[in-house]
Amino acid sequence: MTDALPTGATIGILGGGQLGRMLSVAAARLGFKTCIFEPGGDCPASHVANYHFQAAYEDEDALRKFAASVDVITYEFENIPTSALDLLETLKPVRPGREALRVSQDRLTEKTYLADMGLSVAPFAAVADAQSLEAAIAATGLPAILKTRRFGYDGKGQARIMTAEDTPQALADMQGAPAILEGFVDFSHEVSVIGARGLDGSVACFDPGENVHRDGILRTTTVPARLSAAQRSDAVLLTAQILNRLDYVGVMGVELFVTPQGLVVNEIAPRVHNSGHWTQNGCTVDQFEQHIRAVAGWPLGDGARHADVVMENLIGDDMDRVPALAAEPHTALHLYGKADTKPGRKMGHVNRVVR
Amino acid sequence: MTDALPTGATIGILGGGQLGRMLSVAAARLGFKTCIFEPGGDCPASHVANYHFQAAYEDEDALRKFAASVDVITYEFENIPTSALDLLETLKPVRPGREALRVSQDRLTEKTYLADMGLSVAPFAAVADAQSLEAAIAATGLPAILKTRRFGYDGKGQARIMTAEDTPQALADMQGAPAILEGFVDFSHEVSVIGARGLDGSVACFDPGENVHRDGILRTTTVPARLSAAQRSDAVLLTAQILNRLDYVGVMGVELFVTPQGLVVNEIAPRVHNSGHWTQNGCTVDQFEQHIRAVAGWPLGDGARHADVVMENLIGDDMDRVPALAAEPHTALHLYGKADTKPGRKMGHVNRVVR
Repeated sequence: MTDALPTGATIGILGGGQLGRMLSVAAARLGFKTCIFEPGGDCPASHVANYHFQAAYEDEDALRKFAASVDVITYEFENIPTSALDLLETLKPVRPGREALRVSQDRLTEKTYLADMGLSVAPFAAVADAQSLEAAIAATGLPAILKTRRFGYDGKGQARIMTAEDTPQALADMQGAPAILEGFVDFSHEVSVIGARGLDGSVACFDPGENVHRDGILRTTTVPARLSAAQRSDAVLLTAQILNRLDYVGVMGVELFVTPQGLVVNEIAPRVHNSGHWTQNGCTVDQFEQHIRAVAGWPLGDGARHADVVMENLIGDDMDRVPALAAEPHTALHLYGKADTKPGRKMGHVNRVVR
Repeated sequence: MTDALPTGATIGILGGGQLGRMLSVAAARLGFKTCIFEPGGDCPASHVANYHFQAAYEDEDALRKFAASVDVITYEFENIPTSALDLLETLKPVRPGREALRVSQDRLTEKTYLADMGLSVAPFAAVADAQSLEAAIAATGLPAILKTRRFGYDGKGQARIMTAEDTPQALADMQGAPAILEGFVDFSHEVSVIGARGLDGSVACFDPGENVHRDGILRTTTVPARLSAAQRSDAVLLTAQILNRLDYVGVMGVELFVTPQGLVVNEIAPRVHNSGHWTQNGCTVDQFEQHIRAVAGWPLGDGARHADVVMENLIGDDMDRVPALAAEPHTALHLYGKADTKPGRKMGHVNRVVR
């Protein structure tokens, strides 16, 4: 632990949502203090953090003060404005580093990067206008899905193209933003691997979980996932390959489609991931602590799982079910402290533990 | 959940040490905000709480503002000044209630209360001066242990009397405070039960843990404890009896001596308890969340255990072992964020999980 931060050091976290909140609790458990940078007030992370800088990502003065208050900087989301990172990385270590952000902030760059590594990805092509969209459709076939290259999450900035007739509307949905067309992959189910890489280059992965989405939002993750021993090993090995190639430090989520021809990488997220929430009740060291250990230069937990878990997201009105869920045995509630319930908003999750 | 606090409500916690810290994290997990009342600055609980009132327990104005900021009040230690409680309970519900504090704040009252319930306790007698000490020794025999009636913890305010020669020094150690002499109990080992009682009167207990002390301070708790099925059932039943008799709301720790003649109650603590820290990594709902559920009027977790756990306290210089402990598999670190390491000071604990 030569480069390890001592307990009592301060971890800076960009973003004050539920991921920042659970990172902050994990950091406290290791004796660190935490400092949240988040423009919004009363944000979930601020409830469990030492300090909250409430300022815009364009506020250079606030960014400088934030950097001066912390020993290392990490983040809960990948779409941090480039100008903020340009400044911060001159002041304090930012982990994971810029390469992971550069690759994952742009779907086209990401797909190209993964394909160049020899990994299977969906057929894809860049789309700038009607003409390139036509060429892209010729390359990937239909149905396909048109996505903005940047700033998409939870199904936002996406449009399905089932037949040629859908093309104009899909293009209009992009509102002129650079886009990528992705061909459909014929998969049986989706799994994800939550992998971690330490400052010393060591890698540890949690067991793959099986994900079910609805309306573009993750609903459940079940561990263990339906995978053969060979698929399980492939999933973990390709995750390690990506982590090493990026010289990554921290936790990463890797979403994979399971097909008869093997695993196809859907996308990577350079941060703790919703599909890794099950680790809070299935592992001694969960994904949040694993991430903090990595960015603090501590040894990684081994990822060992001591229970089977089904994680279910609580979205919007699912909050009405909290009284009933609180009375369910073997069920751990994790609520995010968000003041307003909105349709599609992630309000919390439950982990159902099956020994 | 008629009287249940809704998520988003604020839990007030008197005391900002490690127990308040872990209560605060548990409250956040259920979507509550937390407000700590603690005279000390930079206290462990304030690192993970929404608000910290830094004021003395004699500061009526601060107590009033604290009460106005919260929906329910609980505490992490039993020695809260009576005047503060007198004021607070006129303003907001205080849980657990006064009866539990009245009984447990005074060792003589506590022993008498438990004995009156028909439970086995060590032989005891009140001590005010040299004369009553002599009479007490005649009643309990030697060796015995002289303790102040109030404000003792972690072996403080205690003196062993092995032979009559130790008597003057033991009495001097009490510094004139009212005391109690307790006869020795010939026990094979000590166990404790962490029990909880909800606002609706429901009771749930965690599996008994086996405790090892050194220098008057808890070192390890091992779960499961060495107990026969009958002893285990006795331990849980007598805990439920105490909880019901006190009309208790919250988590209580009950320490028991295991003797050939049965279980002898050592002491009760009207709060979450060091010997219940193992529940953080062995149960879906841990003792801290259980306490918050009770004081918030939520349903209790069932106390089910999904792993065997050995909890070890990190005391003083044990902090030097943190780098090595962080590299141990199946080991969960829980550090308290205390700035200064002192001999005998509880700095954190580890839970070693054995599936």
